[in-house]
Amino acid sequence: MDLKNNLRTETGWEIVEKSFDPDQLVTTGSNFMIGNGYLGYRGTFENWGPEEFVACVVTDTWDQAEGSRWSELCNVPNGLFTEIALDGETCSLFSGSLGEYHHALDLRHGINTRMMTWEGPHGKRLEFESRKFASADNHHLLVQQLRLRAMDDAILDLKTGILGEVWSLNGEHFKSHRPATLEGGLIGLILKTGELETKIAMAEGVRLGGKAPSETFEKISGRSIFRHFRFELKKGQQVVLEKVVGITHSNEMMFPLQTACDEVREATEKGFESLLLDHGKNWDTFWELSDIRIEGNLEAQVLTRFNLYQAYIATPTHANLPVGARGLSCQVYQGAAFWDQETYNLPMYAFTHTDIARRLVAYRFDTLSGARRKAEKLGYYGAFYAWTSGKTGDELFPDFFFTDVLTGRPIRNHFNCWQIHISPDVVYGIWLYYQATGDWEFILGQGAEVLFEVAQFLASRVHFKKDKNRYEIIRVLGPDEYHENVDNNAFTNYLSRFSLQKACRVFDRMQQESPERLQALLSKTGIAPGARKDWEEIAELMYLPEPDPKSHIIEQFDGYFGLEEIRPEALRKRLIDPDEYWGWPNGIAVHTQVLKQADVIQLLAMLDGFPQEVLTANYEFYEPRTEHGSSLSPSVHALVASRAKHPEEAYRYFMESATIDLYNASKKVMSGGSFLGGIHTAAAGGVWLIIVKGFAGFSLTDDGAAFEPALPETWESFCFTLRVRGCLLEVTLGRKGIRIRNREDSPQQIHVSLAGKGTWLEPGQVLQD
Amino acid sequence: MDLKNNLRTETGWEIVEKSFDPDQLVTTGSNFMIGNGYLGYRGTFENWGPEEFVACVVTDTWDQAEGSRWSELCNVPNGLFTEIALDGETCSLFSGSLGEYHHALDLRHGINTRMMTWEGPHGKRLEFESRKFASADNHHLLVQQLRLRAMDDAILDLKTGILGEVWSLNGEHFKSHRPATLEGGLIGLILKTGELETKIAMAEGVRLGGKAPSETFEKISGRSIFRHFRFELKKGQQVVLEKVVGITHSNEMMFPLQTACDEVREATEKGFESLLLDHGKNWDTFWELSDIRIEGNLEAQVLTRFNLYQAYIATPTHANLPVGARGLSCQVYQGAAFWDQETYNLPMYAFTHTDIARRLVAYRFDTLSGARRKAEKLGYYGAFYAWTSGKTGDELFPDFFFTDVLTGRPIRNHFNCWQIHISPDVVYGIWLYYQATGDWEFILGQGAEVLFEVAQFLASRVHFKKDKNRYEIIRVLGPDEYHENVDNNAFTNYLSRFSLQKACRVFDRMQQESPERLQALLSKTGIAPGARKDWEEIAELMYLPEPDPKSHIIEQFDGYFGLEEIRPEALRKRLIDPDEYWGWPNGIAVHTQVLKQADVIQLLAMLDGFPQEVLTANYEFYEPRTEHGSSLSPSVHALVASRAKHPEEAYRYFMESATIDLYNASKKVMSGGSFLGGIHTAAAGGVWLIIVKGFAGFSLTDDGAAFEPALPETWESFCFTLRVRGCLLEVTLGRKGIRIRNREDSPQQIHVSLAGKGTWLEPGQVLQD
Repeated sequence: MDLKNNLRTETGWEIVEKSFDPDQLVTTGSNFMIGNGYLGYRGTFENWGPEEFVACVVTDTWDQAEGSRWSELCNVPNGLFTEIALDGETCSLFSGSLGEYHHALDLRHGINTRMMTWEGPHGKRLEFESRKFASADNHHLLVQQLRLRAMDDAILDLKTGILGEVWSLNGEHFKSHRPATLEGGLIGLILKTGELETKIAMAEGVRLGGKAPSETFEKISGRSIFRHFRFELKKGQQVVLEKVVGITHSNEMMFPLQTACDEVREATEKGFESLLLDHGKNWDTFWELSDIRIEGNLEAQVLTRFNLYQAYIATPTHANLPVGARGLSCQVYQGAAFWDQETYNLPMYAFTHTDIARRLVAYRFDTLSGARRKAEKLGYYGAFYAWTSGKTGDELFPDFFFTDVLTGRPIRNHFNCWQIHISPDVVYGIWLYYQATGDWEFILGQGAEVLFEVAQFLASRVHFKKDKNRYEIIRVLGPDEYHENVDNNAFTNYLSRFSLQKACRVFDRMQQESPERLQALLSKTGIAPGARKDWEEIAELMYLPEPDPKSHIIEQFDGYFGLEEIRPEALRKRLIDPDEYWGWPNGIAVHTQVLKQADVIQLLAMLDGFPQEVLTANYEFYEPRTEHGSSLSPSVHALVASRAKHPEEAYRYFMESATIDLYNASKKVMSGGSFLGGIHTAAAGGVWLIIVKGFAGFSLTDDGAAFEPALPETWESFCFTLRVRGCLLEVTLGRKGIRIRNREDSPQQIHVSLAGKGTWLEPGQVLQD
Repeated sequence: MDLKNNLRTETGWEIVEKSFDPDQLVTTGSNFMIGNGYLGYRGTFENWGPEEFVACVVTDTWDQAEGSRWSELCNVPNGLFTEIALDGETCSLFSGSLGEYHHALDLRHGINTRMMTWEGPHGKRLEFESRKFASADNHHLLVQQLRLRAMDDAILDLKTGILGEVWSLNGEHFKSHRPATLEGGLIGLILKTGELETKIAMAEGVRLGGKAPSETFEKISGRSIFRHFRFELKKGQQVVLEKVVGITHSNEMMFPLQTACDEVREATEKGFESLLLDHGKNWDTFWELSDIRIEGNLEAQVLTRFNLYQAYIATPTHANLPVGARGLSCQVYQGAAFWDQETYNLPMYAFTHTDIARRLVAYRFDTLSGARRKAEKLGYYGAFYAWTSGKTGDELFPDFFFTDVLTGRPIRNHFNCWQIHISPDVVYGIWLYYQATGDWEFILGQGAEVLFEVAQFLASRVHFKKDKNRYEIIRVLGPDEYHENVDNNAFTNYLSRFSLQKACRVFDRMQQESPERLQALLSKTGIAPGARKDWEEIAELMYLPEPDPKSHIIEQFDGYFGLEEIRPEALRKRLIDPDEYWGWPNGIAVHTQVLKQADVIQLLAMLDGFPQEVLTANYEFYEPRTEHGSSLSPSVHALVASRAKHPEEAYRYFMESATIDLYNASKKVMSGGSFLGGIHTAAAGGVWLIIVKGFAGFSLTDDGAAFEPALPETWESFCFTLRVRGCLLEVTLGRKGIRIRNREDSPQQIHVSLAGKGTWLEPGQVLQD
């Protein structure tokens, strides 16, 4: 079926670009990208360069370019570069003429395919077919097969290798480039980063099939190294080029070049089809638990899979590393984790691939020292997590981030120092993981330390108002970043109390069950045993903006109701420049009720237990005030709208969230000089939240799971798998009935509640309604 | 002697404009103004109007013009308007030619005098002489004598009366104007303000001398009413016109028009010379205690008297009303009191004319309800005084005050809600008055209530940090307004503790001496008796940024030392527009150490007892970082420089402060569209502070007064009178010796300490050194 934005799908497992649209280089590059959580490779054409936003972003390569204001991941040279000339004319999407054109992304197996026929200005024609993937079996490898068939007699020149020129957002990351020919017929490029001197090694091996070349040589050209092949082809003859590129670096291993060479040599020998087979098996394993099958709406089906695909390839599964806010689709947001990781990306793994979820929460444990350093630097103690968190957990967000487009002056954004909800969010993530898995051993070994240190941070951050006998949290930003410098932000206060309560709970259980481990942890962290009493007192006396008894509305922060009431559409007219930032210090939204995203909605989406009338009243109050300046906003709106009995709005927001990247046909990619492309990873994860927590109304219970389904009107049914405390639940919610099965391979019975009625399911047992 | 800015003085008792300079209309109008604390009348020419900034600002007439963002005093029509025509040619400073020109302000008796000879384009000449004063004997009256002598045969036409067209800064204040001829030969104008419907009455009477008119009639012309006289003069003949204008309003009395008419009729009959005599006596009384005589430096002498003059005419002595930040010289700053009143204007009265001082502190008692309303509105209790305080003490400062000149957007300034030091400043003033006078009865009847309510406000404003066992004051502006939104501002925290301690002290003395009055006060205010314990605890545990043990520097607020270190001169280069505001939200000073005025210097100027090394170290640290964007800044710098043993800098800052108005030759009067003229009343009062607290090193002691003189190099001696707890001390500090005399009319002995050595002086006794 045809989709928007020049796309189509046949099976719901692939997206196809119907024809080449040069105006959509940026979006197509992101949407058709391949990746494996270690590297992301954009869906660009073989001979493109920096101007066309070719990128291969590699995680764990944070480095600060000279003159840049922050660390970011490196974009490494393009090892899949190939230039094709037919009788001397370069084959390009921008010259000659395209006959057939087919560009597709296979979501099931993560393969980018491009097929076309091309006719040069001289009338000679070529059939071109490329398949490439970022190996899910060996994360260092990019693998490609290129098939070129002459449709006329012609000389075919191939220049293939590693293009050293790199599109880098904030300056040059490499202080040295060493292209070289390597043993065993490989070519390579060894790079060293400017700040931290990380060594990045690239090796490339090829295997040729079809007509043999008449001429072959290798050539270093500046920062690049290429292989040159000449083929004298008769009409119908073809050449098959298989390329394997290995990318390794010294942050992961001692001898990156050696490893890259060994792995590339081995893989090249194995050959494309065999590599593809191993790769595909890994993807099958992913989809087995993660697929959401939708009957009756192919568009929703492909959108959902597209978002799950993008969320997955953004997630490092090979190491405890962050999920970047733009994944590995480009360098925007520095390849670093924000609070999105816990709130938008973790849930789908916590209830499916818990090994991946564990990596994500373990990452927060690994970065505890950075969070401690940040707290100390700002005059607190405990763990204040980085707003923008890379390898070490030190704060990567600069003091001055935005630039005032009206004056050219840098803006002091306080995301790094006032947006303290990040620490409770980390606790929220750990608790979610623990609740979903029951992995107490993780809490004992890692989680408890995070919980305690966050509690300590909160204890050093709160203020006690004696006259009101309550604790307050002063001067924060909630998720709604248009309002900096606010007090008693509902989201922050609720989550902080949540955080303190969980710390107390873990403390108490440890005291009871593992007093020696508690003792050891307190000794290690230097936390006084009496601290627990403080946490409890703060939690108990924490001021929580309550729902108003009459209107049921929770005030987003002290004084919010007193701000100017205006709708986002009307407010927008006050812009002087369309690229203006709406928030701090003097953006148009600051003194109004207009929100970037709604904190209270976010709160209702995250914490269960608010009564129906509170859900509904707050949704109805905040929704019209929300500008959705954040890509995180539509998915929680969809989720809460669904629970607030606004199914049409829920579906509208679902579509908005699910199409943020795929249907974004905007040609405008620069705002105030900034590249704005790239995949919105949180929105991608948000699609899972909408469907499972929103449409299926899933929530955890003490003994299992509860569902309050609200099937979208255009869907016949949807079906997904959840792993809840070890049990695998297959859930099918449809117009014709509901079916929940505790899979045979589940280790125990589980309690399932459906629209309020509960039952226990033994392994293999099915609840049918 | 010649002074700067086209001025001269002969005796040190007058300033003379040497020639007419049309570029200085604004400054001359302010500097040569007359006034009596009820009304201020600018030193403008008789036939000028709104374009030449003619103004007669009357206190207690606050009203908000339609479309204006704030209340301000009304500028009333010009009752001293006179247009002179000589043979049909209008006598003007801008046409014809001036012969002799002499424009003077008699500081001793508050008389504005203008004499000139004028030759019209037709060659006919006129001798013109005007003397006018704002009666110090009857504050409703403006009195003028105009003498016109023909130097050639000519017809002289006089059009004299009340010009209804008014220069008003922020819109039209009068919704009705009723010009009328009144009984007894008077003419008048009755006005009603738009917002509060205050009735303002003006009556004018004239008396003619010299040649009688050949023609006389009255005529209403729009909003104005004029008398027309024609004189047929021979060379040498003269006309003397005496005018008395009475201005009254319904905020002071029930029947303003009646009163104005009665008073004007009576005064007109009395005649100019007699009125002048009564007026002059009042001025003699003022100077008897308030003059500071300086030998050896006539310029310093006249500057000092000019500033004392301006400070005095800005001070309402007829009622408990505020001293405006620009006095009554124009409508800028709304004729309202700021913290300047207590810190810059009160001291000179507290130690001289204590009846005036008492009015000023009583004004704060009178406005307690407004301060209570403000506290309540902002979620506190007790008394949060208005940043900008008019009649009722309700906050007159708008949320949005400045406009961003780069974007045209209003700026949310937080002077009204975050600059909380105003409340402790009010206590400081009351305590100063009480210490200077010993007027315990005032404390019992009025002061205690203010002190208690401010203590209550502070108790509701502070935050307790349990982890640090201290009270903090979060999110304030100190006097340095370039840094809004700061925590633990040294000035604010020290003054708040001061304030709480004084409340406890008064509470305790009342409990001991007047328990029933304490009880009555607690009942009246609803303050629980236990509140005193809270005040004490907060005072004791108040976090005070201490002098660093090594450098002795007090950090202005949390994190100040970490701001960018740059000097004001260098910072200025970052301005995009010269009119930009340097402070909140994103002005050039915000993220730097550059100060508008130095809070710590201000603190050292106000609270005694800091060791010498702290004075010196902080002066040397903060002085180069201070931009002096406030006119309040130079005087405290002079004072502290003098005490910090930097006599040259002290004198430089003295001259800067003393000449802010008089030597301000700037032609630029509009900034971002705002009128910036007018007298800097705080700087005027600051001159007294510099000389008495700085150069004489005066401070109060438990039993009297202490002096640590630092005579300016160019002065032979200076001499002033202080009233300290009823005793009158005549202090002469000179190169040839020091002489301190407890005047015969003092009621008791007093202890006087000179450079550390103390002695008791009986009435009439002299300390000579």
